[in-house]
Amino acid sequence: MYERENCSAARALELVGERWSLLIIRNAVFADMTRFSEFQRRLGIAPNILAKRLDDFLTNGLMELRPTDDTPGVHEYLLTPKGRELGLVVIALSEWGDRWAAPNGPPIRYEHDECGGPVHLATTCRTCGDAPAVDNIVAVAGPGATAEQRQRRARS
Amino acid sequence: MYERENCSAARALELVGERWSLLIIRNAVFADMTRFSEFQRRLGIAPNILAKRLDDFLTNGLMELRPTDDTPGVHEYLLTPKGRELGLVVIALSEWGDRWAAPNGPPIRYEHDECGGPVHLATTCRTCGDAPAVDNIVAVAGPGATAEQRQRRARS
Repeated sequence: MYERENCSAARALELVGERWSLLIIRNAVFADMTRFSEFQRRLGIAPNILAKRLDDFLTNGLMELRPTDDTPGVHEYLLTPKGRELGLVVIALSEWGDRWAAPNGPPIRYEHDECGGPVHLATTCRTCGDAPAVDNIVAVAGPGATAEQRQRRARS
Repeated sequence: MYERENCSAARALELVGERWSLLIIRNAVFADMTRFSEFQRRLGIAPNILAKRLDDFLTNGLMELRPTDDTPGVHEYLLTPKGRELGLVVIALSEWGDRWAAPNGPPIRYEHDECGGPVHLATTCRTCGDAPAVDNIVAVAGPGATAEQRQRRARS
């Protein structure tokens, strides 16, 4: 889809940038859903679209299939660690939506299971410890950059 | 698109969940692009799709139009604060992609402009100060939850 892009955000969107993908992941991570029928019922998504998304998740290692304990012939879709970590992307989207598109207040809050405290995502600078705003963050070429990216991102 | 969803992540995806949306935002935030022609050239995106995405960004308050200083008749697309904060979603996607889909290492690193240190996104619990992993984060009903969500999310 984004063939020209040597970019980790684009790579991520190749895997979860289709309609419904991140909402399916959200329900798997934060509502512990594992069954086709649960996703289908809760999301109201067309079964053929849901089947395609889940198949892609299996292909791309975001989920694994496991036979259910209780119902012969029915399988569960279990998140892999790779899939589960997308929970952070879901939280980032939620926090933006809470701030800019939630006139009645946040529908969902994220809590730390151990102490019950509110969990938020924050930027941190590993050198000075600050939490820089987006305006104070710059993108520079990393070890996996192309020569063209290096040139473009040369710090001036 | 996600009418049934009372969810801030879904609200965010309503605005930036279409193909190319977040990559356009990425280039606006982290490559300082403002012109149609720049987005078009760098992304290689079809002009009609790009025009639709930018129009939607204007409609939804993610960008504003401004006449350019140098070329009469040409406008620039400037991020609003609402649009700029989506940079955090881009970073969240990048960090996931760096970890799971960057065999040659991160193509891009994010740096703090003041000290040059590496910037990362991290979870923080505001009560205990820990940085909980996704496994240790639970979603509970917030102030904007529906009655149904409240019931579903009642902590057991």
